[in-house]
Formats: sequence, C-alpha cells, structure tokens
Amino acid sequence: MTNLDDILKSRRDTRHFTDEKVPDEVIEKALQAGHWAPSVGLTDATKYFLIKSPEIKTAIKELFSEYNKKAADATDNLEQKELYNSLKLEAIEEAPIGLIIAYDRSVLNQFTIGTIGSNEAVKFSSVCAAQNIWLSLTDQGYGMGWVSILNYHQFKKILDLPENIEPLGYFCIGKPATNYNNQPMLQQLNWKLKSEKADCREIKSVHLKNTSTPLSTFTTENKKNNNFEILLKEKIDSKTKPVGSLGILETLAFQMASVFESLEPKIINPNIVVFAADHGIANHGVSAYPQDVTRQMVTNFLNGGAAINVFCKQHNINLSIVDAGVNYDFPTNTELIDAKISNGTQSFLHAPAMSESELELCFEKGKAIVNDIAKTGSNCIGFGEMGIGNTSTASVLMSLLTGFSIEDCIGKGTGIEEEKLIQKQNILKKSLENYSGQAELYQQLSYFGGFEIIQMAGGILSAFENKMLILIDGFICTTALLIAFKINPKIKQNAVFCHCSAEKAHQKLLDYLDAKPILNLDLRLGEGTGCAIAFPILKSAEAFLNEMASFESVGISRK
Amino acid sequence: MTNLDDILKSRRDTRHFTDEKVPDEVIEKALQAGHWAPSVGLTDATKYFLIKSPEIKTAIKELFSEYNKKAADATDNLEQKELYNSLKLEAIEEAPIGLIIAYDRSVLNQFTIGTIGSNEAVKFSSVCAAQNIWLSLTDQGYGMGWVSILNYHQFKKILDLPENIEPLGYFCIGKPATNYNNQPMLQQLNWKLKSEKADCREIKSVHLKNTSTPLSTFTTENKKNNNFEILLKEKIDSKTKPVGSLGILETLAFQMASVFESLEPKIINPNIVVFAADHGIANHGVSAYPQDVTRQMVTNFLNGGAAINVFCKQHNINLSIVDAGVNYDFPTNTELIDAKISNGTQSFLHAPAMSESELELCFEKGKAIVNDIAKTGSNCIGFGEMGIGNTSTASVLMSLLTGFSIEDCIGKGTGIEEEKLIQKQNILKKSLENYSGQAELYQQLSYFGGFEIIQMAGGILSAFENKMLILIDGFICTTALLIAFKINPKIKQNAVFCHCSAEKAHQKLLDYLDAKPILNLDLRLGEGTGCAIAFPILKSAEAFLNEMASFESVGISRK
Repeated sequence: MTNLDDILKSRRDTRHFTDEKVPDEVIEKALQAGHWAPSVGLTDATKYFLIKSPEIKTAIKELFSEYNKKAADATDNLEQKELYNSLKLEAIEEAPIGLIIAYDRSVLNQFTIGTIGSNEAVKFSSVCAAQNIWLSLTDQGYGMGWVSILNYHQFKKILDLPENIEPLGYFCIGKPATNYNNQPMLQQLNWKLKSEKADCREIKSVHLKNTSTPLSTFTTENKKNNNFEILLKEKIDSKTKPVGSLGILETLAFQMASVFESLEPKIINPNIVVFAADHGIANHGVSAYPQDVTRQMVTNFLNGGAAINVFCKQHNINLSIVDAGVNYDFPTNTELIDAKISNGTQSFLHAPAMSESELELCFEKGKAIVNDIAKTGSNCIGFGEMGIGNTSTASVLMSLLTGFSIEDCIGKGTGIEEEKLIQKQNILKKSLENYSGQAELYQQLSYFGGFEIIQMAGGILSAFENKMLILIDGFICTTALLIAFKINPKIKQNAVFCHCSAEKAHQKLLDYLDAKPILNLDLRLGEGTGCAIAFPILKSAEAFLNEMASFESVGISRK
Repeated sequence: MTNLDDILKSRRDTRHFTDEKVPDEVIEKALQAGHWAPSVGLTDATKYFLIKSPEIKTAIKELFSEYNKKAADATDNLEQKELYNSLKLEAIEEAPIGLIIAYDRSVLNQFTIGTIGSNEAVKFSSVCAAQNIWLSLTDQGYGMGWVSILNYHQFKKILDLPENIEPLGYFCIGKPATNYNNQPMLQQLNWKLKSEKADCREIKSVHLKNTSTPLSTFTTENKKNNNFEILLKEKIDSKTKPVGSLGILETLAFQMASVFESLEPKIINPNIVVFAADHGIANHGVSAYPQDVTRQMVTNFLNGGAAINVFCKQHNINLSIVDAGVNYDFPTNTELIDAKISNGTQSFLHAPAMSESELELCFEKGKAIVNDIAKTGSNCIGFGEMGIGNTSTASVLMSLLTGFSIEDCIGKGTGIEEEKLIQKQNILKKSLENYSGQAELYQQLSYFGGFEIIQMAGGILSAFENKMLILIDGFICTTALLIAFKINPKIKQNAVFCHCSAEKAHQKLLDYLDAKPILNLDLRLGEGTGCAIAFPILKSAEAFLNEMASFESVGISRK
C-alpha cells in the first residue's frame, strides 16, 4: 500500500488474527514509525514493552474478562447487553505479538516545554506514536487491536511496571483474518454507524468574557447582644448538672446558640460537601496512591460505598460531592456537582498550580455551592475533601501562611513510608525555593493552591455569611479554613473543629488557630469523615440545651 | 509524497509558516483523514472548530503568552530561561488556519464500549485523529503546529465552547517556511536531542500477584481463632480507605467483632444502667452537694429530665436506673430497679462501709441485673452511677488497688473548691491510716466500698460472661472496672473506655489499665453520660465495617 489515504482508511481496530507469525523486522519498522511521532518538549517519554509469553497473555486476558463483565453489567438494556456480550473486543491470547505503549510521567519532574496549562501533552505524544504504529502495521499488511478495557492497576502490577510508567492499553498485533468488509467491526455488526463526515464548524467571533466580581468584600456586622450571652450562660448553668460538668458540650452549645442567634438553637438540614480535585504535584510521587485514586474514590462516593457515605447515612446528613478539578472527565449525568476548574492543577514544583482567573473561579464556585445549600434552609455545613497529593499542597500553604518551616508542616498523608516522606519533603522544599513570587496571599494561593482547597475556602467564607455552623474536618480542611481566616478572621466564630488528625502538622495548625478539636481519634482519612463522626456530639450539645430539666423546674438543690 | 515512512519522518511540529493561503480542499482532505482515525465504541466524539478570524487568533495568542511567561518563570536556570524565551513555540497569529481538535465527553453519558477501566480512550481517539490530520497535511505539502500551552478554561470561555467539549489544544495550519533541517525544531536549536531509537523491551514473565483472600470466603461461624483475626484484619484493611486511616474506629471495630465473634458484628438492643447509692463519707463534707441530691437526681432520671435521659433518647439506648442503696425510701411503684442494700454505706473514716455479706450481695445483685438485660438479647451495656460522695470512695479504692498515693487519686469531683479539696484529702488520708485490715481485696472492698460501685463491678463481670461489649464511663465507673479487672483480668477485652474525664485521677487510672479512651471532652458528670455520648462512635465503627465498599468490590487501586 502506498497512498496515505488508503492506509488511513484501511486501518482497522483488529480483533481477528491468523496464526501467522510477525517477523521482527515488521515490529522494528512499526516501532520506528512510533518513534517518529511527536514528543512534547522532546521528552522521549514513550516506552514500549513487548509480550510474547502465553502465560502473560493469559493473565492479561483475565484482567480484560473481569472488566468486560463489568462493562456488560453497566447496561440494563437486555438487547444491548446480549449484543455486547456477543462482541469480540480483543485477541489477547490469539495475536502473536502483544505490545504495551506507555508514557513515563516522571519526565514532568523536570522542566518540560508544552506542559503548562495541561500536562496531558506527554500522554498525547504517546497516543500519536500508537497511531503511527497502527498505520505502519497497516501499510506492512499487518493489523493491530487496542484493548482499553483493563484493570490498569492490576495490569501494571502483574507486569511489574514502575509507578511512573502509565500504559495506554494493551495492543494486539498480527496478520488480520478479516478486513470487516472495509469498515469498523462495530459498524459491520450493526452496533453503530460511523458518521459520514468529520464534525467541523468555524468559530467566527470571540465570546465576551464575563466580568466577574472581585474577591468579595465582607460585611457582617458584629452586633452581638451582650444580654443574649448572659441569658444563654444562665440557661446552660440552670440545667440539672454541676456547672461546667458537660465540658466541651457546653462550649459547643454556647457557640451554636450564638451562631444561630437563638436560645433554642436547632441544627436544620445538616450537609457535608466533599470537594475533590487532583494535584499536579502528585506526579512527583508524593503520595502513597496513584492519582487515579481520586477519580476512583469520587465514583465510590457516588455509589455510596465510601466511609463518608456510611457515616452521613448513620447521622442523616445530606452529602454532596463536588468535582472541583479531578483529572478525569466524568459523565455529565451523574449526581456529581460539576465545579471543575480544570483536569487537576499543574505541578507547583516549577510553575503555578493555577492561573489567577482559575483562583478567582475557585472562590466563586465554592461560594456558589454553599449559597445554594444555604438556600435550602440548611444552617450547618461540614467540609470534606479528596485529592491524591493534597496533603502536599496543604503543607506548602500552611508553611507560607503561618511561617512555620515546611518540615513542621509535613506528615505522612494517607500513609507513605519514611523514605518517601523525605522525598516529599525535598520536593516541597524545592517548590518553595523555586517560588519567586511575592508574599501576597492571592499570588501564593494561585501558585500553590489546590482547586478543592480553594473552593472549600470560598465555601467557608460563604457559610459564615449565611450564619451557618461550619464543621471543619482534618488537616487539609483546616488549611482551607486558614485561608478563609486570613481573608476574614471572624469566620472562626462559626467554626467547629471536629477532630485532630493523626497528621502531625494538624495539631500544630490547630494550635496556631487556637482551636480545640472535639475528637482525637487518630483519623487520617479526610472526606469529611471527622465532621460526620463528630456530628452526634454537636447534636448532644443541642439536645442537652433544649431538653434537659433545669434545677428550678424539678426542685433540685443547686450548689 | 507517497511513502508512509517518508510522511511519518517528515511530519514536523511547525511554528514557521509562509503567507500562502490554505485551500479549502486541503483542510477537507485533512479532516477526512482525521475522521478515519479510530473512535472508541464508534462514539464519534471528536469535534473540530476552524478559526480564521484575526480577532480570535489575537485573543488566543494572549492566552498563550500569559502561560508561556509562567513556563519561563518555572526554571531558575538562567541559561535555560534565556534559551526558552528565544524559542518560537507557536504561530497562532501568522498561520492562516487555526484548528481546534476537541472531544465531547458527554458521550460517556451513554453506555460506551471500551471505557471501563479508563474513559481516556475517548480523548485518545481524538489524539489519533490529530495525528492523522498531521500526516495528511504533511502528505499534501502543508504543516501543522500543536499549541498546548494555554489557559484551557479561558480558552473555552472565549470560544464559547460548551462545558462538555474538551479541546486538545490549538493547531496552527499553513505552508511550512522551513523543514528545520529535517529534524524537530527543538533539536535543531540544541534544546535537546531526540533519542536514536524507540525504547522497547520484552517482558517475559508475570509478576506474581499478592495472594489476597477473596472476601467471598467470609462466613460468620462463631469459632474464635487466629484465622478469625486474620480474616477480620483483612476485612478492615480491604475497605476503601488507607490502612489504619480510621484510627480508633478501626480498633473499636476489631474489638467489637472479636467480642461478638462475628465478621459482621451488630450492636443489639444497647443498654445503659445507672447505679445510684449514698456514701457515709459524704457526711464529712467531701462533696459540693448535699447527700439529698442523690435522691433528687434519681427522681430526675425517672422523670426523664437528666443529661443521661437526653443522650439515651438521642441514640435510642435503653436506660435503667438502679437503687443500689440511696438514703431514701422510694415509692415501690416507680420504674426504679430495686437493688437496695441499705440506706447508704457507713462512713469509712472510722468503720467499714459495709459488711462482708452486704459486699457479697452487691456482687450478686449487680450480676443479676446485667444477666436479666443479657436475656433480652442485648449485647452492649454501659455503666453509669450517681452518688454524692462517690469520688471519695473511688479515690480510696483506686489508691488501695493500684498502690498510688491518695493524693494522686483525688480530684475535685463534681466541683469542690480548693479548700474543700484539702479537707477531702485529709479525711481520705486519715481513713486509710485508720484501716487496720489486711491488703486483701474483698476485705478492702467491704471496708471502703460503695454499693453502686460494687454492684457495677459485679455487673461488669456478668457482662463479660455474657459476651457483651462493656461501656465504661468516667472515673468512678473505671474504678468499678478496676475491681472487676482484679477479679478477672480478661474483662478488659470487652471494655470500651468511653472518655477521659476532667477528674485528674481518671487519666492516671486509665494509664494504669493501659486503656485508651475514645473521647476527651472534659466531662465530669457521671450518670453514664460519657457512654451515651461516645455511643454513636461505636456505631460508626460498626457501620464502616459492615457497610463500606471494599477495594475489590469497586476496583480501586490499593496501595
């Protein structure tokens, strides 16, 4: 075949191969074609792995089968399910050659051209290589099938691929047994018709930017009725118990009544909102988990299987999940609140995590989400987060905003080992050294911020304006509070510090804020779980203040 | 150009174009090439937008410039920065045609083949289209440059792209002004050398998977053995959270499952029993309240007005009140459990608080009350107490049973003043000096005991025998546990230490017992309130163990 159009047109995603062997020269020529593909910033991040061993193929086939079954389960349409199950979507065991095309995300540890704005250019280069290989094989009379249905985590595990190597899929290579009548197999089998032409339209003018309001000006009058406080104190002390003997519950009752401006305070329609986002810094191996876990956990939240789901259900707390910037495109029909700024921040090792307009948008979206909840009549909101790498972001922000050394602000996150902790410390230290910006809050926040952290900060500011009780979870959430506190110190009046986490910097940060947490349960999960677990204690405070008898009413001797 | 390899090899990321116009046919042919690219599940998600307007180009150039400056700021290496700034990385304004290649992520809202495991296949299809277009343009004698350095958020905004349309970048198209001497521009300018060959190696064997027991093998047989603990640990660790991240909740879940001998432990019919009695020592002014308050509070319990009523109601805990020996004769028609030994103990300042037969009766009655509750099917019991003067009794017992000095075992009770505290200390010291009996447990208990404390100790022993979870409240209740512990140390396996009270001796006693309390809320009320307030945390432990999803069930990457 010589004509490019013929090659492009006859390239097929092939799932039917003959037994014919593939000569080494064919593979070499194809890999050379892949190597001619673009490589952003000449990073040469594309890596190839060949599989010929039947044992490995069988193991990979198993991974495919497991996920393919999941895929079939995903449709309720019986006809569709049956057709789907009849489709042959891979040829892992039959194809003589298996190829893994992968990219090495560790190239992002160095300064890399073309990755500001989005670091996906690295993986896109590898996809271009895949397409070149496909075309070269077609040109040589061979075929390739791209298997994307895999449990990638297990896939990397059984192939013993390093953490930084990310496969695009498994590629089956061999001599095609059919050309599917010159069309995609799915079209031949009537699954779907490929559209006739490319979908293209011209854009003729610039859409005018929204003139967005500047980061808000807060005006909450502080006319606290001195008389109200005296009455409240008297009410608490009149309860049939020694004065002060309910300890922190009495402090909580006092705070709750003050925030709600009522001697009979009632928590109405409590909410917890979990903000999820990805962090560019996670590419540098600062977390015990791969970045993809952010997406996986968001799905888990939506499916009701995570810890926060269980605890919210236990206490009848309304739970919302926000995509503040997860590095994944969720289907738009989920229950997820879409507040995505971008697919994860950039790594702040060498560049700003986000632009100033993105920072502004974070505050806006966070505020809007909480305003919407306040409109439902809710007067109590807990903040939670999910984001692989976000303890690193929080540590750097804490260090900048408190003046503590980065060493004092670092912990083991969700559980990294000693060696990795030192690595994390070095990367964060270097990031701070690399920062040449000013010691100005908004500049620092856009350079080092995380989408979910800033949205929480915005949400906290809005919760205060709406006179809500603000439940603060662990270290990362407290960092969001710290940001909000720097903008409006009054928010502390409404903040309930639900627990002190096992992350050692958290205690230091709580001390800095002069905050006494309710619980000390060695939690270090995030997700707002500390808020949910502490919630019944708030309810106990509410209950004793409203329901206990007073000395006077039952005629008991007062001290 | 006709040979595929020549096309692949001469494809360049072009940033230098001539003024020459690009005929529409060239673009059409290129878009057709893009359209021949794979489309996962035939989703046809790739969308194209053409830009010819100079106004739009200028606006996009601005977005590039802003981010390119950020990129330059990202390197501290001055030489590198200078070289970087000299690089021409786009031709947005000069290239006659601008193209945006994007994907529509809303296709994921429908069942889409090939997106289980990762939905990136959708965007990868569009990247393949980009590469096809690149090759087609090269073949036709034109060039393309991929601009990835952009603020994508603003980019979408100024182009008014719907939220679900995600651009891969901005592509400049035109007649190339140079072929960069047949190499990538970055190589020509000595930024970097492209590696000679593709990086490829063969993987020859499967890396052995961790052999983790599947969850399906769990059954709820009631044989406690080492295997049970392994399965339990595995179940806890399989939950979708970092190992250990639920802190004390995980310890509680482990304990609860072990006590109930079930991998699906459930708290059934929880109870709190408040034992009330009077103390002869109260006659010596050791308390802040008159003795009659014991009676008054029992009446308050029966009327539902005390703190423990409110908290038991909050958590649906069954509450029983026991008259273990209040110095008052209650009407017999109350709901009070009558286990009265006598109208209060004698003062142990000069004489034994109770006789040995009374002591025996205390154990018996305490055991009987708990046995009766166990018979209702309850497997969880909390102990509470009320008795003016009973911190004095508890202090003396603690001192005798632990060997700590009386000073170490004394606190302010429900709130006496400094002067009274010294008086209390002197009286208790004197009482101990007056004691001429032996250092034998039962003798010490009858000399210094309190009816409610000994009944609680008996109840705790019985709760253990009934395989119940035993909730321990504050200082006095912990002293009862200490007594039971001296008789049967195994009871600690079933004991949950609900809180550490503000009574300073309590922490010391907990340390002695090597016990870690759940709460630290400065409570010092008694009545079992600590048990009730901590109860929802036990329920949280139960809930996460039974209801959370496992990594295996949802396919989340484990650490």
